[in-house]
Amino acid sequence: MQRHFDEELGAIKKKLVQMAGLAEGMISRAVQVLVERDSKLTEEIWPAENEVNHKQLNIDEDCLKLLALHQPMATDLRFLVATLRTTGELERIADQAVNITQAALVLIEKPELKPLIDIPRMAQVAAGMVKDSLDAFVKKDAPLARRVLERDNEVDAYKDQIFRELLTYMFSDPKSIERAIELILISRHLERIADHATNIAEDAIYYVEGRDVRHHAGE
Amino acid sequence: MQRHFDEELGAIKKKLVQMAGLAEGMISRAVQVLVERDSKLTEEIWPAENEVNHKQLNIDEDCLKLLALHQPMATDLRFLVATLRTTGELERIADQAVNITQAALVLIEKPELKPLIDIPRMAQVAAGMVKDSLDAFVKKDAPLARRVLERDNEVDAYKDQIFRELLTYMFSDPKSIERAIELILISRHLERIADHATNIAEDAIYYVEGRDVRHHAGE
Repeated sequence: MQRHFDEELGAIKKKLVQMAGLAEGMISRAVQVLVERDSKLTEEIWPAENEVNHKQLNIDEDCLKLLALHQPMATDLRFLVATLRTTGELERIADQAVNITQAALVLIEKPELKPLIDIPRMAQVAAGMVKDSLDAFVKKDAPLARRVLERDNEVDAYKDQIFRELLTYMFSDPKSIERAIELILISRHLERIADHATNIAEDAIYYVEGRDVRHHAGE
Repeated sequence: MQRHFDEELGAIKKKLVQMAGLAEGMISRAVQVLVERDSKLTEEIWPAENEVNHKQLNIDEDCLKLLALHQPMATDLRFLVATLRTTGELERIADQAVNITQAALVLIEKPELKPLIDIPRMAQVAAGMVKDSLDAFVKKDAPLARRVLERDNEVDAYKDQIFRELLTYMFSDPKSIERAIELILISRHLERIADHATNIAEDAIYYVEGRDVRHHAGE
């Protein structure tokens, strides 16, 4: 019974890794649309979004079946509950990648405002946080999860820097306003992706240690 | 046993209603700070945020205990899973109210850009969606939950209208740019609140009907 159950948990972990891989790929691809000014790249994004949504429903159903049929305790119960939360985070990450893609499609129809440096860097940090938070979750690596939490400041610094720089563009040329606002909104979508990665990292710690570190409850 | 369990479920519902009431109150108060240009009103917001965070941890713990100790099936299991998701949505709603408050505090230090009409209306719609989604959840009212889903378009229309109007201010006067951007960001926070209410409404339908309507899976 327990062996069968463990196999089921392993299968869920595998699906979760695939789902996270799709979401991460969507982030990189969305920023690539913007940087390379190539709308063709969106062709991979829309099917990935469908697949992420499908995986969420599928993994959640798996978790609910296991909750209903077995009576998981302690770690197993925490794993299932944390997984139900994590699929929600990954789905929202994919949504934010879609938002970035839509803003990118608007932007690449217009002349380039400036060479983009900070946004791709910020995207790399955010996508790295998604990857590491998921790794921490499936490998039960709480120290890695804690390092993800620390990187949130880095993302905030990028957000502020991008905002300040774009303000100067808007002040000096009103024709830049619409494009600058789209870029600011893209930086906010990236910020939210980092927030979701932070939530996954908190769920990883909860799963591994049984401690709810949200809102610094562990302090 | 079942009777004791039902009492526990009732207690969770009660806490959930309180938590939602706090989050809703935070939205109205945050917009009031902005409209009445009165920073004193924030004094109610910060303690409410703490209370929302505390309630999330507390309700989640209750749900986990019931999942671990009883072996809830069918409706009861769905209720607990949907509650775990809903506390997350309410907590994010409170976070967005905090974001609105912070933007409002920046704005009221500066001269008024324009009389605010659409933002308070949009806030009212969003807060109403939070209230109705939670009512639908605790009263098992799926038709009410479906009406919440329909109101998302109304919120999107406000968002677009606010954006277009503020663009015209920025074009005509660069001194208005920073304030206009803060107002645009506030409208985005309200949009996210409506999204979270939509998620709660979907969880309500899942709880009542056992159908997962996210991503239109029910179609």
